[in-house]
Amino acid sequence: MQRAAHGVLLEVAYDGTAFSGWAHQPTRRTVQDTLDGAIHTLDPNASPVRGTSRTDAGVHAEGQCVAFDASLPLSPRGWVLAVNQHLPDDVAVRSAREIDVEYNPRFKAKNKRYRYRILLDRVRDPLLRDRAWRIGWPLDIARMQEETKSIVGTHDFGAFRSAHDARTETVRTIAGANVELESERVAAFVIEGNAFLYNMVRILVGTLVDVGRGKLEPGAIDRALRSPLREEGRKLAGMTAPAHGLTLEKIDLDLPPTSGTPWPR
Amino acid sequence: MQRAAHGVLLEVAYDGTAFSGWAHQPTRRTVQDTLDGAIHTLDPNASPVRGTSRTDAGVHAEGQCVAFDASLPLSPRGWVLAVNQHLPDDVAVRSAREIDVEYNPRFKAKNKRYRYRILLDRVRDPLLRDRAWRIGWPLDIARMQEETKSIVGTHDFGAFRSAHDARTETVRTIAGANVELESERVAAFVIEGNAFLYNMVRILVGTLVDVGRGKLEPGAIDRALRSPLREEGRKLAGMTAPAHGLTLEKIDLDLPPTSGTPWPR
Repeated sequence: MQRAAHGVLLEVAYDGTAFSGWAHQPTRRTVQDTLDGAIHTLDPNASPVRGTSRTDAGVHAEGQCVAFDASLPLSPRGWVLAVNQHLPDDVAVRSAREIDVEYNPRFKAKNKRYRYRILLDRVRDPLLRDRAWRIGWPLDIARMQEETKSIVGTHDFGAFRSAHDARTETVRTIAGANVELESERVAAFVIEGNAFLYNMVRILVGTLVDVGRGKLEPGAIDRALRSPLREEGRKLAGMTAPAHGLTLEKIDLDLPPTSGTPWPR
Repeated sequence: MQRAAHGVLLEVAYDGTAFSGWAHQPTRRTVQDTLDGAIHTLDPNASPVRGTSRTDAGVHAEGQCVAFDASLPLSPRGWVLAVNQHLPDDVAVRSAREIDVEYNPRFKAKNKRYRYRILLDRVRDPLLRDRAWRIGWPLDIARMQEETKSIVGTHDFGAFRSAHDARTETVRTIAGANVELESERVAAFVIEGNAFLYNMVRILVGTLVDVGRGKLEPGAIDRALRSPLREEGRKLAGMTAPAHGLTLEKIDLDLPPTSGTPWPR
């Protein structure tokens, strides 16, 4: 058996609609298992893949970062073309580069950018059904933009996480947050930071939409962040927005100086 | 049996991916049959629907216009909500208005706007796989923009139609044509006119892409339009671009003064 002596780092994009999320599950279709299957077909000695962010079912990605160790000495271009030949239509390798063997991107993110799309429309739109959360009420976008200001900075986001999140350390630093209009009827909440709590982006979106429609008063996010009791803080925040509006857009990793140049960009 | 005495005009959107086009087919899934089925469930005495444009398999629509005659006296809002309840996720009524009974939109278009999206990328993108034609070569967008100028106006488009188009009258008037950049890596060919030949937009796109990649010399469209022999003209034009890049965006109909106000817009 050949040693898996070539570290490879991939950028991977997927349409999350038909996946039960990123992480391996024994009986469901996941992105991790799909990638492992494609790589194993090419290189039976390759290690399992190591992803950076565990996206939920329905969440999309343009720039998930994934490392593995290969025994085949393919070029970055070779990996992109070969793995894509073995992947289904709803997932693709977007670029590849050489990296140290056993590099694990899981806790190496310097920055992650998420985009959450909101469709402002009184009736549903089949062309955006899997990509944006439709809100049929009028939303005050300027008020939502103002509300995002209290997100930026270092805060205890304990009020903005799923009850399933067991992590005790809930302080996170958010480098940027904004609501922008992509078109007349599509708004996007864009947020950047190096780490997030489970469901944090989606609960922030649910709260912003409640502020935008007048169900919560402006300042709701700030009040939830400052709430001394976590259970109380979670009650001050809004619902968890549905998964299908969310896209993991880009991850900037802390890379060792030995890492190669990506192909194609 | 109640008379179908209420004319209704719908704007309909669909993701064309899983449809064998607009027009009824005995054994395939089409948009027309799907709409007829939903309306018939609500109103068994309603007439079959009459569409404006027969879009091909894989082609999307944001603003297909569809008329039918109902026996139920629903409001426009009532039709939008009720029909959408009976339609699958990939098709939806976007608006409704009252119109004369037996109104047929088929030859009533004052203007139709199509958008053809081109993804400029060396590797495939799962999130755009059903919405844009991916071109892996560099394209000279400025050259393509220049080339669109010869499309605008009244010309014999005999060179830009499918061999399956049996119409003898091939002169059409194009009100506008342009190539625009939607983002760094998505270009769109937008064309407007009151009538088009079969596959005309897709053959124009195939020709523009050949000019953009340098396979055809600038002026190719003008030369094909001026070619006196049709067979020769078709040879001067490019391939038919694939269906999935094309969206029927908007139709402006010549409406009788008796028609009502649309809901919701």
